[in-house]
Amino acid sequence: MIMMVPKGFLFSGVSSGIKKSGELDTGLIYLPDAGDCITYITNNKVKAAPLLVNLKKMKASKGKVKAVLVNSGNANCFTGSQGIKDAELTTKRLSEILKIRASAVLVSSTGIIGKRLPVKSMADRFPELTNGLNKKPDKFAKSILTTDTFKKVASKQIKCAGETINILGIAKGAGMIYPQLRHATMLAFICTDAHIKKSLLREAVSDAVEGSFNSITIDGYTSTNDSVFVASSNKAGGCYIKEKGRIFNLLGKALQEVCLKLAKMIVKDGEGVSKFIQIKIKGAKSKPEAKRAAYAVANSYLFKSAVYGQQKNWGRIVQILGQIGIPVSDNINVKASSLRRKEIDIDIDLKRGKAEFVVFTSDITPEYIKINAGYS
Amino acid sequence: MIMMVPKGFLFSGVSSGIKKSGELDTGLIYLPDAGDCITYITNNKVKAAPLLVNLKKMKASKGKVKAVLVNSGNANCFTGSQGIKDAELTTKRLSEILKIRASAVLVSSTGIIGKRLPVKSMADRFPELTNGLNKKPDKFAKSILTTDTFKKVASKQIKCAGETINILGIAKGAGMIYPQLRHATMLAFICTDAHIKKSLLREAVSDAVEGSFNSITIDGYTSTNDSVFVASSNKAGGCYIKEKGRIFNLLGKALQEVCLKLAKMIVKDGEGVSKFIQIKIKGAKSKPEAKRAAYAVANSYLFKSAVYGQQKNWGRIVQILGQIGIPVSDNINVKASSLRRKEIDIDIDLKRGKAEFVVFTSDITPEYIKINAGYS
Repeated sequence: MIMMVPKGFLFSGVSSGIKKSGELDTGLIYLPDAGDCITYITNNKVKAAPLLVNLKKMKASKGKVKAVLVNSGNANCFTGSQGIKDAELTTKRLSEILKIRASAVLVSSTGIIGKRLPVKSMADRFPELTNGLNKKPDKFAKSILTTDTFKKVASKQIKCAGETINILGIAKGAGMIYPQLRHATMLAFICTDAHIKKSLLREAVSDAVEGSFNSITIDGYTSTNDSVFVASSNKAGGCYIKEKGRIFNLLGKALQEVCLKLAKMIVKDGEGVSKFIQIKIKGAKSKPEAKRAAYAVANSYLFKSAVYGQQKNWGRIVQILGQIGIPVSDNINVKASSLRRKEIDIDIDLKRGKAEFVVFTSDITPEYIKINAGYS
Repeated sequence: MIMMVPKGFLFSGVSSGIKKSGELDTGLIYLPDAGDCITYITNNKVKAAPLLVNLKKMKASKGKVKAVLVNSGNANCFTGSQGIKDAELTTKRLSEILKIRASAVLVSSTGIIGKRLPVKSMADRFPELTNGLNKKPDKFAKSILTTDTFKKVASKQIKCAGETINILGIAKGAGMIYPQLRHATMLAFICTDAHIKKSLLREAVSDAVEGSFNSITIDGYTSTNDSVFVASSNKAGGCYIKEKGRIFNLLGKALQEVCLKLAKMIVKDGEGVSKFIQIKIKGAKSKPEAKRAAYAVANSYLFKSAVYGQQKNWGRIVQILGQIGIPVSDNINVKASSLRRKEIDIDIDLKRGKAEFVVFTSDITPEYIKINAGYS
């Protein structure tokens, strides 16, 4: 895969012994000249320590970020005030080595819940982590994985006034880390060298996230650690995007494309997944109704089981729509491509209005239960 | 099992060929002298035809009911106006044979969704069905089953002024009928000969239903056909319960006991179930919060998978409570009996207040997915 890496970003990944397998588990994204950062975090009322720490840092740094430290194998969640201290301590240690302010270092964790972060063994590897910084994101992309079966990287280039604007996305999906106590977590890091007014970047990213990460579901459970980081190094200086127009639209489309590719990879690599399903709700009364209906179907284990079994059991679509309070009549229309294929499109016309919503999901298999029962 | 059958009730069950296996699939409860009937139906916005037909009949008969016709193997749901006609036609045919008003005959169906009820083949067996009426509920209890693995019958007697008041409950649980299109459905029939003021019966039954059928979940999906029928023949004439007091309390307790026994049997006989779990939420801010928390945990497939795998993965309890908006702190307390046992008690103290709620549920197994994928 040829990856187009945005100017102004360096990457690294090492093993700190968090994963007992000895695999890479600690990664770093570094912007020597700082960048504009936007973050999205889970709406779960229980938020892992790094998410809470980042909120403070984003405020203190006004979104000017130089580094994102990531670890897999430990979610640093349900760890109380100690977890907050640990997240702060790791970023402080790293900032000292990088000789930058601690508030310019964000932090992200994924893995086991309820266990202390091994701060010391992580900090011991920080010299190796920072020495290893280079333009190749491979080690970083590997270091953030849990039981993902492949690295998730997507990139896109656009041209503007002879300048090349690069967008690179790196993500991880749902997976098991420890058989005792674990949690599926979605993380995504979007890097661009676009030179763009921050309010415009925020708008473009907001649309891209809504149509990608906010349009997928594997099992219906919202993680305590889900985070999306978007950083712009502004290094593509030949083309300053300061207003809406053709280039802004191109960038928005490219961001959307990168996010959607990553989101689809996350679904396809979900625990035990055998089929990728696109569900399109049509004819809803409103967009919120369309979204609610799409997610209700996408999260129905009875519907997912039927698709896994290649059964056109649309009575289960009717059941779940009725359960969430949409009184579907006997004339709803369901169209599906062959359930024998790996990728399936299902269109559901509610015949109540004109609103639409598309969601990407997976089937549910006995393997999913086995994985989540602690063995496979 | 010795069943104590209430006076004033007759039962029957035949095979009408709805189930291709030739098993009993059509049942009848008959009250020659009529009885006071109370019904509870699903709150799914999609309601099967018999439920809609019963609403009309209950109004027309003012709750004075003489018969309940039940079939398994076909839910008569998502069948449009034809389904309504079919439900009305079967009860009309049966009422002609019994020489009673059609409005005194209720109807209940469970099984495949989206397929017409075979009215003619059912009506052809009505003479056999009515001729077979007797005091033994065995055939009826068998005729309402789908893939239940055992009949669900519970009974209880109380004494009052030398008179015996009998309560008999018969139920069916979740199961597969056809591999193509099917639906889990809960039906329960509670018969008593208590001579009781109807408003008091309603109150006693309401409490009993809340603490039993309204406190269970297997997979979190609310059926389009769920119904509970309670009928009193008022034949235990020696003891008229016209006000609250000791006997009313005794009857209420007995009703609760019968309903709870049936509800627990339904959970234990759920699709693929390997463990029965009682979840008690303590320390909630309010009863509704306790109930919401209890059901959120009970319906979490991640939590259920962990119990199946005998993993004390309480991070998943924290995750789902956060997802439904309860910001649990790090000091919630989870106590569980050994996960190796078939029956497990889990107490979760939220430490937010004093409200409690208990829910009965099951684990989730790979078998559940296999059954619902259309093969096992």
